Amino acid sequence: MKEYAFGIDVGGTSVKIGLFKNDGTLVEKWSIPTHTENNGASILGDIAKAILAKMEEKKLTEADVEGVGIGLPGAVDAQGVIHKAVNLHWEDTFNVAERLSGLLNGLKVKAGNDANVAALGEAWVGSGKGYDSLVMVTLGTGVGGGVIVNGKIVEGATGAAGEIGHMHMNDDEEKQCNCGNHGCLEQYASATGIVNILEKELAASDENSVMRQKKHTAKDVWDAVEEGDALAIRVAEQFGSYLGKGLSIIADVINPEIFVIGGGVSLSGDVIMPFITKNFEKHVFHACRGTKFTRAILGNDGGIYGAAKLVL
Amino acid sequence: MKEYAFGIDVGGTSVKIGLFKNDGTLVEKWSIPTHTENNGASILGDIAKAILAKMEEKKLTEADVEGVGIGLPGAVDAQGVIHKAVNLHWEDTFNVAERLSGLLNGLKVKAGNDANVAALGEAWVGSGKGYDSLVMVTLGTGVGGGVIVNGKIVEGATGAAGEIGHMHMNDDEEKQCNCGNHGCLEQYASATGIVNILEKELAASDENSVMRQKKHTAKDVWDAVEEGDALAIRVAEQFGSYLGKGLSIIADVINPEIFVIGGGVSLSGDVIMPFITKNFEKHVFHACRGTKFTRAILGNDGGIYGAAKLVL
Repeated sequence: MKEYAFGIDVGGTSVKIGLFKNDGTLVEKWSIPTHTENNGASILGDIAKAILAKMEEKKLTEADVEGVGIGLPGAVDAQGVIHKAVNLHWEDTFNVAERLSGLLNGLKVKAGNDANVAALGEAWVGSGKGYDSLVMVTLGTGVGGGVIVNGKIVEGATGAAGEIGHMHMNDDEEKQCNCGNHGCLEQYASATGIVNILEKELAASDENSVMRQKKHTAKDVWDAVEEGDALAIRVAEQFGSYLGKGLSIIADVINPEIFVIGGGVSLSGDVIMPFITKNFEKHVFHACRGTKFTRAILGNDGGIYGAAKLVL
Repeated sequence: MKEYAFGIDVGGTSVKIGLFKNDGTLVEKWSIPTHTENNGASILGDIAKAILAKMEEKKLTEADVEGVGIGLPGAVDAQGVIHKAVNLHWEDTFNVAERLSGLLNGLKVKAGNDANVAALGEAWVGSGKGYDSLVMVTLGTGVGGGVIVNGKIVEGATGAAGEIGHMHMNDDEEKQCNCGNHGCLEQYASATGIVNILEKELAASDENSVMRQKKHTAKDVWDAVEEGDALAIRVAEQFGSYLGKGLSIIADVINPEIFVIGGGVSLSGDVIMPFITKNFEKHVFHACRGTKFTRAILGNDGGIYGAAKLVL
């Protein structure tokens, strides 16, 4: 194993890049803008330039660098083929790993979906460290996920494994999810979903609540829960009911050792956890009771860690 | 790789045993009774005797036999430890693989859960042959499952992966599932579940239906569906709605290449498939649409095939 690796996390506005030692030590991280114009034609070239420049600066040759891992916002299969990436304005199906490797003089490149790669990062050096099987649940604007079994990412047949935000949870939902379906988990368990539940609760009665004075954000809901606000607690119960049920189903299917909860919503702290675990324990198969839950610790860096781990 | 292996499938009334060539050819199969008295104390000894006798009869030595795989009706972890097996009257937690190996003069033994092992059998030489990732769905008295990723069984942290019959599907179910929970998938998608749905439908109205003359079995329901009976079709729609939704969730999580539908209910033939796939396609994440569905072909022999594959 060579001494260094790069981990890349490509987002719609910026590309995060990390230079790592092979033991998981982050040597340096920086970011470059994501140029989405011209269908994002220059994105991979910009990344290659940044890496080659850093190698020159640090006097690293191919003999020092094991390879480059890259996490992308789209479905990526086990061979590194991406099928469209809306946020990057990529419309084509092509092999990202091969193309980037070509721009890097043949350096080894592996590609994965960003949520899956973040899960691998938490499993490597984050709060999932030491566990062989885990499911990462990212509660942000949407709900993302990553599934690790036997220490490896489960990509799925079309790179769509871990799309837990789109598990069907409610036959009666009238609102459409961004994916086009109705009643997806992320319609209740994301930051947006929490605000949707809140607005329904506020509209349903004149009940007094601190939420009538606060901004309608997920964070404000959790603050109100901590203040003991009854309406906010009902919102949290609904959030926890959907998410706890959804994660119980995942446990029935793959029985992971631990769930790692990340994303913006998780930053509200341990207040959110009992709402999830109570409903999880209620519905899960008895042999899966007591599955561990923890919060992610790598935050936005999970992606670059996991990407580096792809090649290490 | 040595030339032969044994595959064992332990049930509550009989133990099926198969002698296989390492290419998957079944040389001979037979069965012995399962002695559950005295907490099933003699089961492993009976199996060992049967194997050693067959090796003597066939003049096979340890140099000819790669090992013995065994599928058991209980949660078995990756190390071969079983945590109780109600149907065998086993109350203890112990390492089945080690104990059976000890009775076989140190021959290699691997153990797995019977539903998982049957899935491996279908993946090896059955209708899942050639697929790297599949989910087997066994629709019998209950609903069992087995998950194969990268050609290997996913056992789960406590050996409970693939317990898809106990995915929580309905908050409003009043009847308790055998597992103690309420609203599990097998309450709607098993043979028993189909009969439960039927009886609700029959009690809800005086509507004319051939089911009022037929026996109340799942098979009779499917026969009536083929005759175009409206009430039976409504029963099938409910069955398909729960099962299609459940399998769509599994696809969102692990995105298998193919679902293999087995068990007694599947013997009613292709009439059941559209009820499942229609609902699957409606709810699954778009990148998982078009996931293949097929019926199992190994029937009751899936367990011995998969067990042999554990050691091959």
